[in-house]
Amino acid sequence: MPKSTKKNHMGKNLDELFHDTLKDIYYAEKKILSTLPKMAKAAKSSDLKDAFEKHRRQTEGHVDRLERVFATIDKKPQGKTCDAIVGITDEGAEIMKDYKGSPALDAGLLAAAQAVEHYEISRYGTLKTWAGELGLNDAVELLEQTLEEEKETDQTLTRIAESVVNREAEAA
Amino acid sequence: MPKSTKKNHMGKNLDELFHDTLKDIYYAEKKILSTLPKMAKAAKSSDLKDAFEKHRRQTEGHVDRLERVFATIDKKPQGKTCDAIVGITDEGAEIMKDYKGSPALDAGLLAAAQAVEHYEISRYGTLKTWAGELGLNDAVELLEQTLEEEKETDQTLTRIAESVVNREAEAA
Repeated sequence: MPKSTKKNHMGKNLDELFHDTLKDIYYAEKKILSTLPKMAKAAKSSDLKDAFEKHRRQTEGHVDRLERVFATIDKKPQGKTCDAIVGITDEGAEIMKDYKGSPALDAGLLAAAQAVEHYEISRYGTLKTWAGELGLNDAVELLEQTLEEEKETDQTLTRIAESVVNREAEAA
Repeated sequence: MPKSTKKNHMGKNLDELFHDTLKDIYYAEKKILSTLPKMAKAAKSSDLKDAFEKHRRQTEGHVDRLERVFATIDKKPQGKTCDAIVGITDEGAEIMKDYKGSPALDAGLLAAAQAVEHYEISRYGTLKTWAGELGLNDAVELLEQTLEEEKETDQTLTRIAESVVNREAEAA
C-alpha cells in the first residue's frame, strides 16, 4: 500500500509496519541463504546435509516470493538489518566452532536450524495476518506458501533430530 | 549428567550441549521477565496488557522449572548471554520506539512477542528431545510443561492479533 494512504498523523500505520517487517524478513532470508551452505558442509549426517541443501534451494524461492510481495505494495525489494536473525545465526556459528569434531555437532546444528525456522514461522504468520487485514490477497497467498514450507522444514528437522542425530551423539 | 560421563575426547558431548543450551534459555527467560512489564505498559489493548501480565507470571514459573532442570544434572543455575534473545528483544524495543502513539503499536508488540514465543518453543522442544536421549526423565517432564505453556501463549497471542488489534490498527 503506497504511503499516500496513510490515514492519520499519529505515527506509523499497519501498512508501514507490514513494509518494515517485510524488509526484516527479506534481510533474514538472504542471511539464511548465505549460512545454509556452511551448515550443510559442517553436518556429518547425510540426511542432515541433504535437508540443508534442499532448504537452501527452497530459500531461493522464498526470496523470489518476497520480491513479489514487495511488488504488491509497489515497493522495491529492500532489506533492513534484522538483529534477531543475526543473533540466531551467530549462535549457530558458535556451535560450529565449539562442537567441531564432536559427536554432538549435528544435534547442535539441528537446534540452530530449528531456531531459524521458528523465527521465520513467526514472521511469516504475522505478515500473512497483516496482509489479510490490509486486503492484500496476492500477498496472503505468497506468504502462506512460504509459511507452509517453513513448517514442513521444521517437521523434517524434528524427525531427523529424533531419529538419527541424537542417538549417534549419545552412542559415540 | 556430570562431566565424568564424557565418553570420548572428540570435543563436547550431548550432555554438555544440553547444559550449554540450558544456560542459554535460562538467560533468555530472565531477559523476557525484565522485558514483559515494559511491553504490558506500552500495550494499548487491555486484552494484550492482560496477556503480557499473565505471561510474566508464567515466566517466573519457567525460571523455577529451569532451576529444577539444572538440579537434575547436578549443576548450579547459571545464565549465558543468548545473542538470539538479545536480537529479538532489541527488535521489540525498536517497535516500541518507532510505533509509539501509532494505531499499529499493538500489532507490532504482538509480532515481537510471538517471535519470542517461537524462539522459546524451538529451544524447549530441542531440550526436551535431548533430555529424553540422555535419559533425564524428570527434566523431560519439566521441559514439556513449559513447552506446552509457551505454545498456549503463542495461540493466545495469535487470537488477539487476529481478532482485535489489527482491526483497530486498520480502522484508525
